[in-house]
Amino acid sequence: MANAPSGFFLTIEGGEGAGKTTAVDFIKSWMTSHRLAFIETREPGGTQVAEHLRSLLLGHHGEPLSDMTELLMMFAARSQNIFHNVLPGLEAGKIVLCDRFTDATYAYQGGGRGLNTQPVEALENLVQGSLRPDMTVLLDVDPETGMARAKGRGGRLDRIEQEKMDFFIRVRNAYLERAKLFPEQFEVIDAGQPLENVQRQLLEVLSRRLGER
Amino acid sequence: MANAPSGFFLTIEGGEGAGKTTAVDFIKSWMTSHRLAFIETREPGGTQVAEHLRSLLLGHHGEPLSDMTELLMMFAARSQNIFHNVLPGLEAGKIVLCDRFTDATYAYQGGGRGLNTQPVEALENLVQGSLRPDMTVLLDVDPETGMARAKGRGGRLDRIEQEKMDFFIRVRNAYLERAKLFPEQFEVIDAGQPLENVQRQLLEVLSRRLGER
Repeated sequence: MANAPSGFFLTIEGGEGAGKTTAVDFIKSWMTSHRLAFIETREPGGTQVAEHLRSLLLGHHGEPLSDMTELLMMFAARSQNIFHNVLPGLEAGKIVLCDRFTDATYAYQGGGRGLNTQPVEALENLVQGSLRPDMTVLLDVDPETGMARAKGRGGRLDRIEQEKMDFFIRVRNAYLERAKLFPEQFEVIDAGQPLENVQRQLLEVLSRRLGER
Repeated sequence: MANAPSGFFLTIEGGEGAGKTTAVDFIKSWMTSHRLAFIETREPGGTQVAEHLRSLLLGHHGEPLSDMTELLMMFAARSQNIFHNVLPGLEAGKIVLCDRFTDATYAYQGGGRGLNTQPVEALENLVQGSLRPDMTVLLDVDPETGMARAKGRGGRLDRIEQEKMDFFIRVRNAYLERAKLFPEQFEVIDAGQPLENVQRQLLEVLSRRLGER
């Protein structure tokens, strides 16, 4: 399961309200205008079974999911997405654009839920072999700003929202730590800036990393 | 996640047509008549989310499940069952009777599908820690006999059935290999015998292993 030499595995990461959807659209337009062949997918999801797993993961149940169950379901969906989308796309020499990947698991399950990263790492190796993103765009935003954006309002947070805030701060820190650990993989973009600045920076990154294709 | 000292984790394993359902009913009657506290569960399944995973695992999809996806979903269901049923049952000092457990994964995914056992072992350690069955009743039957029984008929097998037969022979051999590896855990019962002989042997095993409780 090594990266196919001709494909390019591009993942987008970021917390709530970081502007992931807008950035994905921007990247797709750029690739289209540069006549680059790509496929788009997302996690958890991307195949029929993986989308079922997504609903199970994101839905409300009569029972809590244990942390380990959540982690295993996340990687089950990932395994299916790799098998049906990511590897075939890379083997066909395409750019595979994936909205969230394993770095999100490190950030949310590892950082947010406070799980040890050891099981995440064990599953990453088991499921992915040597497959890693060639480039990850991390849209980094202060969680207060992000949450306010996501909710379309400003104002102070209530107790529950504040608890969530601590969660999202841990998620952000875990993302930034990943970026520090893997500087060749990560392109961190300050998503707190005005949109045109974010897009100018995205443009620079895309030209630099994909302009030669 | 060590076995609670007072609980007893009892699993039942066997291929198609081995008579697992009848054996489970027999064991439950025996425990009830001996006033032993027990809970009953099954895998994959045993909780709402795990039963959802079961339907996804056993259902037909527009897409094939990769072997790794299947394995991860199996352990996700297991993790949820352990969290909600097995550990609470053992911690309450009960007998936990589980229709299939990880030995089935070794037999079906490892033996039947011909997967390396290394990923099964890695997931077993990750998900279960030190939790292992205290006793496993393996109902062993020649797959020809088992399949004929399961289909309620005798007669020769067609080409497709013969392919399945090779699968079930590998499952059986993997089960028997597990039993050889873990003789203190396994009680192998020849399920090709007439029912009364099977039950007499079950009775002997139950009295010997659970009679003192």
